[in-house]
Amino acid sequence: MPPGMTLREFQRQIDATYGARDRARGVDGTFRRLVEEVGELARALRDGDPRTLEEETSDVLAWTVTVASLCGVDVERAAMRYANCPKCGATPCACPHGSS
Amino acid sequence: MPPGMTLREFQRQIDATYGARDRARGVDGTFRRLVEEVGELARALRDGDPRTLEEETSDVLAWTVTVASLCGVDVERAAMRYANCPKCGATPCACPHGSS
Repeated sequence: MPPGMTLREFQRQIDATYGARDRARGVDGTFRRLVEEVGELARALRDGDPRTLEEETSDVLAWTVTVASLCGVDVERAAMRYANCPKCGATPCACPHGSS
Repeated sequence: MPPGMTLREFQRQIDATYGARDRARGVDGTFRRLVEEVGELARALRDGDPRTLEEETSDVLAWTVTVASLCGVDVERAAMRYANCPKCGATPCACPHGSS
């Protein structure tokens, strides 16, 4: 994956690396792994080490994409929903304060 | 954002849309929002509606990227860690079964 990696390339690479094992594990066990990684990111935020934060971010992204693949979601298409704020349609978001 | 959106473009777009509000909220409140969205993804997995699954996936991705921005993580650089399995270095992953 060269610099400039698209979301679609990332999803394909994760599937090439782990897809067979992910499908064997199933969506519930895979979702649990995502939650584990969210917990590890919480810990990394508390500790504040930049390298660990980068690693835990990559783990959360990878497991999110894996869950997406298992339920048929194209992550690049999903991300396009955020081409502008999906609620107010603006960039920057103009939603009323307190709504987010 | 055209089709072929890179992870870096996605992070920049989220920052352009929400960055000022995210920085005002701070990392802990933003992380809480990520956890809320993970919960909504869990519910979407139970219900199985494809459109809701796509939406909740996009929300988890967006809030993950927001947390990353607030702690100085470049998500594209982070994702490059998964160019192959970060543990065994192979595609497909050749880690012993049971380790993941």
